Amino acid sequence: MIKPEEALRIILEEVRIQPFEEVELIDSFGRVLAEDVISDINVPPFDNSAMDGYAIVASDTAGASKKSLRRLKILGELKAGDVSNFEVTSGFALKIMTGAPIPLGADTVVKKEDTDLGDDEVSIFCEVEKGKNIRLAGEDVIKGERIFPTGVHIRPQEIGLLASLGKSKVKVFKLPTVAILSTGDELVEIDEPLAPGKIRNSNTYSLMAQVISCGARPFPLEIARDNVDATKRLIEKGLEVSDTLLTTGGVSMGDYDVVKDVLDDLGAELKFWKVAQKPGMPLAFWRLGEKLIFGLPGNPVSTIVCFEEYVRPIILKMMGRSHIFRPEVDAIFEHDLQKKSGRAFFVRVNVKTKDGKHYVSLTGPQGSGILKSMSLANGIAIIPSETTLVKTGDKVKVHLIDLPEDH
Amino acid sequence: MIKPEEALRIILEEVRIQPFEEVELIDSFGRVLAEDVISDINVPPFDNSAMDGYAIVASDTAGASKKSLRRLKILGELKAGDVSNFEVTSGFALKIMTGAPIPLGADTVVKKEDTDLGDDEVSIFCEVEKGKNIRLAGEDVIKGERIFPTGVHIRPQEIGLLASLGKSKVKVFKLPTVAILSTGDELVEIDEPLAPGKIRNSNTYSLMAQVISCGARPFPLEIARDNVDATKRLIEKGLEVSDTLLTTGGVSMGDYDVVKDVLDDLGAELKFWKVAQKPGMPLAFWRLGEKLIFGLPGNPVSTIVCFEEYVRPIILKMMGRSHIFRPEVDAIFEHDLQKKSGRAFFVRVNVKTKDGKHYVSLTGPQGSGILKSMSLANGIAIIPSETTLVKTGDKVKVHLIDLPEDH
Repeated sequence: MIKPEEALRIILEEVRIQPFEEVELIDSFGRVLAEDVISDINVPPFDNSAMDGYAIVASDTAGASKKSLRRLKILGELKAGDVSNFEVTSGFALKIMTGAPIPLGADTVVKKEDTDLGDDEVSIFCEVEKGKNIRLAGEDVIKGERIFPTGVHIRPQEIGLLASLGKSKVKVFKLPTVAILSTGDELVEIDEPLAPGKIRNSNTYSLMAQVISCGARPFPLEIARDNVDATKRLIEKGLEVSDTLLTTGGVSMGDYDVVKDVLDDLGAELKFWKVAQKPGMPLAFWRLGEKLIFGLPGNPVSTIVCFEEYVRPIILKMMGRSHIFRPEVDAIFEHDLQKKSGRAFFVRVNVKTKDGKHYVSLTGPQGSGILKSMSLANGIAIIPSETTLVKTGDKVKVHLIDLPEDH
Repeated sequence: MIKPEEALRIILEEVRIQPFEEVELIDSFGRVLAEDVISDINVPPFDNSAMDGYAIVASDTAGASKKSLRRLKILGELKAGDVSNFEVTSGFALKIMTGAPIPLGADTVVKKEDTDLGDDEVSIFCEVEKGKNIRLAGEDVIKGERIFPTGVHIRPQEIGLLASLGKSKVKVFKLPTVAILSTGDELVEIDEPLAPGKIRNSNTYSLMAQVISCGARPFPLEIARDNVDATKRLIEKGLEVSDTLLTTGGVSMGDYDVVKDVLDDLGAELKFWKVAQKPGMPLAFWRLGEKLIFGLPGNPVSTIVCFEEYVRPIILKMMGRSHIFRPEVDAIFEHDLQKKSGRAFFVRVNVKTKDGKHYVSLTGPQGSGILKSMSLANGIAIIPSETTLVKTGDKVKVHLIDLPEDH
């Protein structure tokens, strides 16, 4: 039996980042860049007006005020998207719209509100500083600049910047496909009637949702019955279609736990079996060629917690992400909790934040089969192996497992 | 010109939650439940073994120890998924696997590790408490219990619980479709060459990504040129296919800003135009029948920031979510920043957390066209309208805009 930290270390050591592929810009959203992006243009590509107004020579407004207007003759007008054939000299102005290129000779834009909106001639009410209301070519990005290095996580603002550079196709790391295999003679599908002695297969569904929440692709397999042939056939199928295989059930000490036997038989290398933790003690982990295989325990909460703590980080790492762990905070425990030494506890908690401090309370009974207390939780508190007593007011580490809007 | 708080208040007042639809269980992930879910079964449905071991009568182990074994005769064995035809009485044991139903008469399971693993007879090494290692029927969910009320946000753990109840179809609020219309003669598509005076249409792409990040469906329209006919045709198309329409550009003070004219003409009710903020001053908001329409400014950063602050919350509200705002924290400002009174500033910042305190630094020049400083940001600091000076060490409110792994 190894410690949770050791299990995580072993798993992370085995992970390889995915190969890359080229996708349409919008499909790169949420993924990780697999190339350096160098700009081949200035952004903006030309000096342009930041306001609707008049392009002028700044010195023409020297000393101007509402009592001492400056009148300039209007040469014409320019809107966004136009090409300028005008040259502005002292005494002249060009009507200009936001985004239109600054004409030759002009060094300033005076905004509409500071004028009388004239059409043939315009009166200017105030002195305008040279360079005012002009967005300079290259003020966002300079031609030849490396905008993003490999490894950048692509969010909406990166999509916008890539679009402005004309990157209609982007190289990103491939999304892993994660096969999911629930095992057990006791399982029935969720739309089947519940015969005596049977329970519904919930693990396949919660795991699919967890895989989707990482941004990866779930591949659910049919239920494997507790016999070597069926289990072997489905494990082989799962390995064929996926980068990583998750099994649930079939890894405890029972005589009918066949997953371990089948993987042995297929030549998978068992990296560890059993972790000193609760829930999730029978967790197993193998490598077979390039594929990683997790043997998750069959209890619904064990499955969810083991995914959170061990599988989620490696899926994010495969996708090229550099931040792969949930936010961890110190929080004040609001119960007394006694436990035996020798196993770390992953405890389902509700985290509340007040005046910058986090407080956690248990969400209910902590049995490995009790999904209700998992469903009430927005955090997993970590009670270390050697701890035997946590008292009200003690600090504990908590992993925040919810989406950000729910904090 | 209204204040940002007032703009948000007006927008939120106009939002209606979406109608519901029934979807496959896995497709309900990330969405909001539009029905109360009552369990028609106990979960687990029957008393079952939490361990691999032997189902016994607890009193048979009274006084047992390694020096004083108790020997019981084995009746047979039961695995997960089996139906029990056995009755266990004093002096007898039934070999039992995790998940198998507890046979009649047995009140306890002694785990494998506390026995000699016998097949005909088994020796027990210790006293076992009555009820030990049994998961009771209904310990997670009791038949008739309301598991979830309408309004629950469905995460992996809710998916698991719904699966265990056999909810293969779930009623959820419909995802809104959000049409996106970028306007301007200066725009070219991202895969077209950049002619003089033109810039690439980046707003459609950043907005699509933002809509996707809310879990809603983007519907990008082609670029609208700055004339009434083209703009009208595309706005009508957008309204036809969507629940909410976002336009970018065409709402400032320029003579060619046609979005306002077209919406007037279509009979849309202008709820406000212009908000005392930077970036995003020309923000406009209309209602037309059941549809909400946002006129976002054309500058790339204005668009992203206005979406974050005004559009994202209403999309989440339409989806039925109750937590619709980004996490807001107090943070220590690491610069001196001077501004005029009269407009709130939304400032692009990098948030760092140390010893439970948040620190923010500017990510670079804050011009409305400068996407690079948006791309370096993980937060938006709010500098209130009346503030004229923020000094190093002052506290500011910050909206955390990143995914949780990136905090």
